[in-house]
Amino acid sequence: MRWGERLFCALVVSVVSVVAAVAAMAQPPAPEASTTSAVSPSATPGLFSEETLRDCQRLQQAALTSDYAWRQVAHLSNNIGPRLTGSAQAAKAVEYVSGELKALGCEVQLEKTMVPHWVRGDEHAELTQFPGQAENTTQKIVLTALGGSVATRPEGITAEVISVRNFDELKSLPREKVVGKIVLFDHSFDKQMAAQGHGGQAYGEAVVYRGAGASAAARQGAVACLVKSVGGADYRIPHTGAMHYDAGVPKIPAAAVTAEDAELIAALTREGPIKMHLVLTPQTLPDVESANVIGDIKGSERPDEIVIVSGHLDSWDLGTGAIDDGAGVAVAMQAAQVIQQLHLKPKRTLRVIAWINEENGSRGSKQYEHDHSAEFPKHFAVDETDSGAGHPIGINIKGKPELEKLLAPVAAILEHSGAGGLTLAEHIGEDIRPMEEAGVPAFSPMQDSRFYFNYHHTAADTLDKIVPRELQENAAVVAVAAYALANAERSLPR
Amino acid sequence: MRWGERLFCALVVSVVSVVAAVAAMAQPPAPEASTTSAVSPSATPGLFSEETLRDCQRLQQAALTSDYAWRQVAHLSNNIGPRLTGSAQAAKAVEYVSGELKALGCEVQLEKTMVPHWVRGDEHAELTQFPGQAENTTQKIVLTALGGSVATRPEGITAEVISVRNFDELKSLPREKVVGKIVLFDHSFDKQMAAQGHGGQAYGEAVVYRGAGASAAARQGAVACLVKSVGGADYRIPHTGAMHYDAGVPKIPAAAVTAEDAELIAALTREGPIKMHLVLTPQTLPDVESANVIGDIKGSERPDEIVIVSGHLDSWDLGTGAIDDGAGVAVAMQAAQVIQQLHLKPKRTLRVIAWINEENGSRGSKQYEHDHSAEFPKHFAVDETDSGAGHPIGINIKGKPELEKLLAPVAAILEHSGAGGLTLAEHIGEDIRPMEEAGVPAFSPMQDSRFYFNYHHTAADTLDKIVPRELQENAAVVAVAAYALANAERSLPR
Repeated sequence: MRWGERLFCALVVSVVSVVAAVAAMAQPPAPEASTTSAVSPSATPGLFSEETLRDCQRLQQAALTSDYAWRQVAHLSNNIGPRLTGSAQAAKAVEYVSGELKALGCEVQLEKTMVPHWVRGDEHAELTQFPGQAENTTQKIVLTALGGSVATRPEGITAEVISVRNFDELKSLPREKVVGKIVLFDHSFDKQMAAQGHGGQAYGEAVVYRGAGASAAARQGAVACLVKSVGGADYRIPHTGAMHYDAGVPKIPAAAVTAEDAELIAALTREGPIKMHLVLTPQTLPDVESANVIGDIKGSERPDEIVIVSGHLDSWDLGTGAIDDGAGVAVAMQAAQVIQQLHLKPKRTLRVIAWINEENGSRGSKQYEHDHSAEFPKHFAVDETDSGAGHPIGINIKGKPELEKLLAPVAAILEHSGAGGLTLAEHIGEDIRPMEEAGVPAFSPMQDSRFYFNYHHTAADTLDKIVPRELQENAAVVAVAAYALANAERSLPR
Repeated sequence: MRWGERLFCALVVSVVSVVAAVAAMAQPPAPEASTTSAVSPSATPGLFSEETLRDCQRLQQAALTSDYAWRQVAHLSNNIGPRLTGSAQAAKAVEYVSGELKALGCEVQLEKTMVPHWVRGDEHAELTQFPGQAENTTQKIVLTALGGSVATRPEGITAEVISVRNFDELKSLPREKVVGKIVLFDHSFDKQMAAQGHGGQAYGEAVVYRGAGASAAARQGAVACLVKSVGGADYRIPHTGAMHYDAGVPKIPAAAVTAEDAELIAALTREGPIKMHLVLTPQTLPDVESANVIGDIKGSERPDEIVIVSGHLDSWDLGTGAIDDGAGVAVAMQAAQVIQQLHLKPKRTLRVIAWINEENGSRGSKQYEHDHSAEFPKHFAVDETDSGAGHPIGINIKGKPELEKLLAPVAAILEHSGAGGLTLAEHIGEDIRPMEEAGVPAFSPMQDSRFYFNYHHTAADTLDKIVPRELQENAAVVAVAAYALANAERSLPR
C-alpha cells in the first residue's frame, strides 16, 4: 500500500476503526453459520436472496477453514520474494498468479503495461564528525534509499547535516544555512496515534516529508535529503517508500533513516556541527513490460457486470511483501477459490485482479482505467485489500450511504468472525481509485491495522507477520461480500 | 551482559521476578522520603543507623531527580558509540569515564589488562537456490557474525543449508548429510516466556546453540554454522553475541540469522534443497591494552573495606550499547555523584568500576581477580547492574539468606519508587563472578526485563530504549543500597 501522500484519505481511513467498532456493536446478533436457514426475513431487505445468503454462509465456512490464501501468500513471500516493479521476481509473480488463477478455472488475461524499473544499490552512511567522537571513529547511520531517488556519486558525498522539524522550519532558515548541506526532516511518526488505531492518520501526517522533502530541501540548495522513517518500528530498521521530484528543481538523493538514527542526529546537532558520509547508488533503468493479472469467473446471468476483488502484486524490495500486499492478492484469489470449490455460479462476473506497480507509479491502475473506463458503468462493485492481514472487524464501503443498510445482511453473516461492522469510507485503495472516482461502489475488509505501520515498507514485512487465522477471516470477508454483490437482486445506488 | 552459556544462572534470574513481586507486596509501607524522620525503629534491626537511613532517603531523592546518569549514558551511546573491546571507542570510553570520575572527586586508577580485538567485516548472505525461485534471483538472508567467529573466504562460500532443531537432531544425522553443508540451528527464543518476565530462562535455553553450535556442526563436517537469533526481536534484526570453538575441532564461520530468516530457511528446506552464498569477513587482531576504570570515594572509617558499584563499559558493536551496558556504568557513576553532591562520607570505601571486556572474554574481571583476590575478604559487598535500565522492583541479593532480613530497612526506603522487593539470587553479574564465588555479598537492581532481550546485542540497543525516569529509579536503588552497606554498623554474614 502506498497511500500516496494524500492526507485526506489517510485521515478518513483512520476514523474508520472507531466508527466501525460502534457499527459492529449495532449489528444484530449473527446467525450461527452452521445453521443454513438462520437468516431471518427482517435482516434481508431485498438486495440478496435467501439462497445467496445461505451460499454466503457456506463460503464463509469454506474460507475460514481453508489454507489456500496462506499457501499463496507463503509462495509469493518465501519462494518468489520481494516483487518490486520491473524485477525478475515481479515478472515471476505475474506468471505464477496467472497460472494459479488458470488452475482455478478462471479466464485469465494479462493486461500489459510498461512499468518503472528502479533498482536499489549500495546504501550506507556514517557520521564522520560529531561532538565528543573518539579519534578516527565514525557513528554508523542506518538508512535506506527512498524509491525513485537519484544516486550520490559512487564514492558518496560528505556534508554537514542539519535537522529541521518540518517544512516551515526549513523555509525559515536563510538559504546560506542550507546550501551544500544534507537536510534531515526529523518529523516523528505518531506511534501513540497508531497504537490507538489511527495509523493512517499518523502516516498521512508524516509521509509528506518522504514524498516532497527532497525537492523542498533542494529548492534551498541542499545536496541530499533524509527523512525520519515513516512508520512505527523501534528496532532500528528503516521504512522505504516512494518520493517524487518537482519539475525545475535539482534532483538530490533521498533516504529514510531509522527513528533511532534520526534521534541520534538530532541530539548530536544540538551539541555541535556534524558531518555525514552518504552513499546511495540506486539506478533508474528503462521501463519494462509487465502486467496486471486478471482472472474472471464469468457471470451466469449478467457476465458483462463485474465485481472485482483485488490486491497488488508488486511490493517494496526490502522485505518479502507479505502484508503489503501478498496478503491482499492471496485473499482475492481465495474468493475465487472457494466459489469454485463449492461449485457456485455467480450471476455477475467475479474478477480477480493482481495489480502491478501500486507502490511506485500506479501504472497497472492507469492501464486498467485506459483499457476499461468505458466499462466502468457496468463495474458493479470493486474491492481492494491493501492494509495487511489483521483481524477484520467489518467492511469499509465507499459509495452511497444507502449501501450501509443494503449490506446489513452480509454484515450479519460476517459477524460470525467478528467482522460485522459496516462503515462508509472516503477511499478504499490506490489501484481502484479511478473506479472509485467513476462512482463504482468500493469496499475492503476493515482491518486491525494497529501494527501495520510498524512493518510497512521495511525488511520485516515477512510471512511471519501474518496470523493464518486472521488471513482466513479476511478471505471470508472478501469472498462473502463479493459473492453476495455478484448475486445481488438489483443494481446498487451509485 | 553476556550471561555466558551458563544455564543455571539464567534460570535463577528468571525466577527472581515472580518471587520479587511477592516480596514487594510483603514489604512494610514505605516511609515518605521527604519525611526524614519516618524510619520507624521496628524497621531498623540494627545493621543501619537511623542517620544512615535518613541519608539514604536523601540520596534516593537526589538520584530520582538527577539527570546525571542520563547524561552519562547519552554520552557513551551517542557521542562515543559502540564500544567493542579493542576498539578506539572502547579506549575513548575508558578515558572519558576516568575523567568523569576524577571530576566527581574520586581517586581513579586504570587497571590495565590485555583484551581481545575482534573486528566485524563484511557480512551478507543470500539463498542462491531454493524451490520456486524466479530465474536469476536470490533471496536475501539477514545475519550477523557471532563474536569471535572466523571468516569465510573473502568471496564467500556457497553450500547447501540444512536446518536442525537442536543438538540431538544434528547428532542423529549421518555424517554424510552434514559434510560440506551449512547447518542452521533453528531453535527459537521463547518470546512468550520472556514476555512473562522469564527472559533469562528463555535466553539460557537458546544461547547454548550460539555458544557451542559451531563446534558441534564442525564435528560432523559442516562448513559454517547459523543460529536463529537469541532474542525476541521480530523486526528482522539479528542478535550477535559470543561463541567459542572447542579445541581440536575445525573452526568454521558462525553467524546469527534473524528469526524471520531462520523461519524462511526452515520453510524452504521443507520444500526442497536450498543453497546459500555466505560472506563473513571478521578478523581477530592481536590483543590490545585496555583497562577497568576504578574510582574510589575513600571510606572515612574503614577505607580498606570496599563496597563496589559497577557496570561494564564495553558493548557489542552493532548498537551503541545503551542498555548493555552503558546504563549500568551510568547508574554506578550516579551512586558516586549523589554521595558527593550531598557531601556524604561513607565509612567504607565506595568503589565505582567500569569493567572492560564483559562481552567477549571477561578479561577485566579476570584482571581484577588477579590483582585483588587477596583483598576479597575485605570487599564488603559488590553490585553489578547489567540487565538494562527497566523499572526496578527491588534488589537481587546473592549471599546468606539472613541478608534478606538485614536489608529490609533499605528495601522499605526503596519501596517509595516501587523497588521494595528483596530476593535471593544464584548469580548477579559476569564481571563480579569471582567475588561472588569468594563469598562477597552481591547485589543488583531487580529490573523489569520483559523487553530487554528484544534489543539485547542488536543494532537497536540505542539510547531511546532507556526511559529516563526508570534510569533514575535504578540509580536510586544502587546509590541507596551501596551507601547503606558502606555505612553498615557491622559485618555482613558471608
